[in-house]
Amino acid sequence: MTSHPAPPDGCFRGPVHLYAVRVYFEDTDMSGVVYHANYLRWFERARSDMLRLIGIDQRAAQEAGAGFYAVAGLTIRYAAPARLDDDILIESHPLELRAASCRIRQRALRAATLLAEADVRVGFVGADGRPRRQPEPWRAAFARLVATGEPPA
Amino acid sequence: MTSHPAPPDGCFRGPVHLYAVRVYFEDTDMSGVVYHANYLRWFERARSDMLRLIGIDQRAAQEAGAGFYAVAGLTIRYAAPARLDDDILIESHPLELRAASCRIRQRALRAATLLAEADVRVGFVGADGRPRRQPEPWRAAFARLVATGEPPA
Amino acid sequence: MTSHPAPPDGCFRGPVHLYAVRVYFEDTDMSGVVYHANYLRWFERARSDMLRLIGIDQRAAQEAGAGFYAVAGLTIRYAAPARLDDDILIESHPLELRAASCRIRQRALRAATLLAEADVRVGFVGADGRPRRQPEPWRAAFARLVATGEPPA
Amino acid sequence: MTSHPAPPDGCFRGPVHLYAVRVYFEDTDMSGVVYHANYLRWFERARSDMLRLIGIDQRAAQEAGAGFYAVAGLTIRYAAPARLDDDILIESHPLELRAASCRIRQRALRAATLLAEADVRVGFVGADGRPRRQPEPWRAAFARLVATGEPPA
Repeated sequence: MTSHPAPPDGCFRGPVHLYAVRVYFEDTDMSGVVYHANYLRWFERARSDMLRLIGIDQRAAQEAGAGFYAVAGLTIRYAAPARLDDDILIESHPLELRAASCRIRQRALRAATLLAEADVRVGFVGADGRPRRQPEPWRAAFARLVATGEPPA
Repeated sequence: MTSHPAPPDGCFRGPVHLYAVRVYFEDTDMSGVVYHANYLRWFERARSDMLRLIGIDQRAAQEAGAGFYAVAGLTIRYAAPARLDDDILIESHPLELRAASCRIRQRALRAATLLAEADVRVGFVGADGRPRRQPEPWRAAFARLVATGEPPA
Repeated sequence: MTSHPAPPDGCFRGPVHLYAVRVYFEDTDMSGVVYHANYLRWFERARSDMLRLIGIDQRAAQEAGAGFYAVAGLTIRYAAPARLDDDILIESHPLELRAASCRIRQRALRAATLLAEADVRVGFVGADGRPRRQPEPWRAAFARLVATGEPPA
Repeated sequence: MTSHPAPPDGCFRGPVHLYAVRVYFEDTDMSGVVYHANYLRWFERARSDMLRLIGIDQRAAQEAGAGFYAVAGLTIRYAAPARLDDDILIESHPLELRAASCRIRQRALRAATLLAEADVRVGFVGADGRPRRQPEPWRAAFARLVATGEPPA
């Protein structure tokens, strides 16, 4: 009997979330390497996976009109290019937690080679697009991760 | 000891290649569901993974100036929408093999629900962008898959 | 006094809508030409512009919960590649109008060279994602375009 | 006689390059507003247009193997969301010029509302991906823009 392949799942190593991507044609541009904006898509995939693993259901929250996380700002530095078929590891490290936002350090690596590193501020916004406090269970899940370095059991 | 997560890998069930994706924010649009063009990106990821698994190294071929596969045409029908966090299975079934092209049937499914199905013609083109015969080992790998329903050992 | 540049606007030549795009890095992939799925994004931009010009306000309709157009299926054939900085003309020709859907023929051209041509079926769906009749003013605007070859004054 | 629509062209107001985009479905995500990474695509379009207007032919340079500009890093702050059909003005202001790189300040505005502002460092790299001096005519064109606030005649 053959099982289905599963969609990509990340995992935690202490407080750091690990997530893997492979480079496809869609990620590259005519310069032969990954287009710079596409790292932001990978980082977003990794953050979404991290949220899912600590029990935050973004889709349910949005369908209920509770709001969603939005990127408030980021700084990114590109250190080395990535190419087709490369196996990339995305590390996401929540660094700071506030009532309505959090700050996450993210890196893209190919084995030991740093490709890009970013500092991303994510804010919670209501259905009206205005900043508001994160849902308490969400804040608590993040707080546990930041304070103890331990993801939920 | 903690291992790294691996990038998504597909597998074969007979001649059909299976590949899994999860829906992220980047895939959706303001209508709340996956933007129609993004299915083409998923299908391309799946085809690239299928090629990789049967031993075709697209990056080496391109770096050597040997050429690459390009989509020559496709027909796609959208049957049901996909939403954030959905687990999607992409099935790819090579149906027909010619000297310079092949035809692949691809479907996107969420469990038993068909989301989209496509018939994709892919042609091999030289570095000059003109159609040319596929490299013989590539053609042979595809021929084995189409004829015997068996991927390479 | 300096005026601002305006965002791209299409126009009609009889019933055919014309819209122009230029190729940027984001549109290309490592093969040096435009990534196949990106033609679908250009075609969608052109259809949105066509709707806007015949007086259909998609944003207002969606914000009011009235529904939106969704691509139900399409066939596309790629005839020639496009490269960075190319000036591309997108032609959109509404061919057929039904209560809940319409069919549009679209082509991408660089001067006299056909790059891609598509036949796109677009259906109207309610906020629940189910097919429903187009708003009567929308259907009427399309009908006038299809029947008389004349866009609204 | 009917003329064709032209692809979007920017212009200069002193040393500041202006470029307009409109928001399409492809730019948005399920939160109803423009996906954060897509501002980077708009900013890249604007920079490419600015280069084109000051006489830099990126495509010819790349085809000749001379190299290309690559984003080395950027900081972006999101101030307000953008929605379908919004008319957005992208301002690009070259601030600093070095032998192998330049720094450009970019903003996205909807009328008087600031949507996002970024500080982008762009480096010139050879066909081997390594930093190298910009072609002298390119450096000179930028230098004139930065020093005198005057684009080429």
